[in-house]
Amino acid sequence: MGLWYDEVFEDKLRLGLKLKRTLFTGQSDFQKVEVVETELLGKALLIDGLWMTCEGEEAPYHELIVQPAMVTSPTIERVLIIGGGDGGTAREVLRHAEVKHVDMVEIDAMVIEACKEHLPEIGTAWDDPRLNVMVGDGVAYVKEADVEPYDVVIVDGSDPVGPAKGLFNESFYRGCARLLKEEGVFVTQSESPRLFKEIHLEMVQVINTVFGAAWPYYYPVMIYGSGHWSWTYASRQTTPYDLNDERVARLEKDSRIYNRGIHHGVFALPNHVKQELAEMLVKRDA
Amino acid sequence: MGLWYDEVFEDKLRLGLKLKRTLFTGQSDFQKVEVVETELLGKALLIDGLWMTCEGEEAPYHELIVQPAMVTSPTIERVLIIGGGDGGTAREVLRHAEVKHVDMVEIDAMVIEACKEHLPEIGTAWDDPRLNVMVGDGVAYVKEADVEPYDVVIVDGSDPVGPAKGLFNESFYRGCARLLKEEGVFVTQSESPRLFKEIHLEMVQVINTVFGAAWPYYYPVMIYGSGHWSWTYASRQTTPYDLNDERVARLEKDSRIYNRGIHHGVFALPNHVKQELAEMLVKRDA
Repeated sequence: MGLWYDEVFEDKLRLGLKLKRTLFTGQSDFQKVEVVETELLGKALLIDGLWMTCEGEEAPYHELIVQPAMVTSPTIERVLIIGGGDGGTAREVLRHAEVKHVDMVEIDAMVIEACKEHLPEIGTAWDDPRLNVMVGDGVAYVKEADVEPYDVVIVDGSDPVGPAKGLFNESFYRGCARLLKEEGVFVTQSESPRLFKEIHLEMVQVINTVFGAAWPYYYPVMIYGSGHWSWTYASRQTTPYDLNDERVARLEKDSRIYNRGIHHGVFALPNHVKQELAEMLVKRDA
Repeated sequence: MGLWYDEVFEDKLRLGLKLKRTLFTGQSDFQKVEVVETELLGKALLIDGLWMTCEGEEAPYHELIVQPAMVTSPTIERVLIIGGGDGGTAREVLRHAEVKHVDMVEIDAMVIEACKEHLPEIGTAWDDPRLNVMVGDGVAYVKEADVEPYDVVIVDGSDPVGPAKGLFNESFYRGCARLLKEEGVFVTQSESPRLFKEIHLEMVQVINTVFGAAWPYYYPVMIYGSGHWSWTYASRQTTPYDLNDERVARLEKDSRIYNRGIHHGVFALPNHVKQELAEMLVKRDA
């Protein structure tokens, strides 16, 4: 007889999963970290009571945050991940043999340790020698790091509260742009376009200002409870329509979600959003 | 201090909305019918404890069940709707001036009456003189009705339990095919491809057998709690890619969700589903 664990939105909406058992509970310097086992979706990570990822529903999020950028950036040798403590994003990046080096900057060591121990099915690439994990502040990193520029920068942070708050403002995006090659691709998760519509549209607008173009894209992630989730793609030189056919063909062999049709499909936005972005002068032309 | 109303899936997953108040509760000959007012999504209809539709999240379902068929069927003068008691599907059909006559066969008069009284924002076309509402059994109708064939047949029923059960088998689809013009388009809601994957794929397979082709398509509907919802498009002669540009352009002016990009996007399926349909020999070529 398990208990329900509900993520509650503003005391108005809740998405609950029945638990089999709790595997880990900890309070880090930043947040509450929990790993539970659910009846429906296998093991799951929660941060501050919010569903982050789970075995049964991690492919949509991780394939979609990673692959549109990876199949369009002209080169993909050096990749930076901010956040991504469950390891799913690094795993998706490292599917590409062309990748030579990945820097991952996650602020919370407890998330990494809990996921390494309890969710090894999600982070399957921790031992890849191309992966360099740093525990530290991504906001400081993109401001200060003195490194070769990256081909792709991916921001896989949690919501704009707690330690991830700094990942949602213009100065952070300018730091990401500083570390990105001229023709490189930036991507960030950009919240529920339904429940956090204002935050989402504001992020898109700021990213458009920083990079000169911004393409939000949508796909549902069941555990986030709001239908569509969103990510936003940006580049000074490259567009989401500049596909590398060989990379796409390789991914199509063993992706759960991603294929060429999905790639184009996710950039098609609901009519009201499309109209609002046009009014906001967000550049989304090829 | 409202109460939570949860739709529960197999005692494993629940989607709850906080209620402001209950507007209607009734037990018809077929099912329990409720209309409530929620904090987040306005007024909502529930049948047997399952979220059916609500003011704040009805456009994705109703635009998507209707418009892909309406913009591709060569002619759209005569339309049949089975189910659709909330009136949203009829409203979307009747946006097209080319439509001359709509027959709607809903089994439960209580659903129609409750929605007319409490959800008039969804069913805005009840008084359209082109709409002929019949209270009756859709299964018997498609088997027995002696009428001119339809250009478009839309099945907007609830889940394969209770009175809607008969809408999910081959003999019913053969009845729909019997009433459809050779180049006409059939569409049905086809369940959550996530939570009811087997039922969904079985429906697609049977529809493919009956019509010679079947195109499932996906879009999220937040209140159904499973990320993607699905509908399935079928026709003996027409494909989802035969768009009537004028109709699309007219819809794009005032649709909330539907536009040309969404039309193409919804037919792009997750990679694992695409592979399974190919193995099942479902015909989805243009």
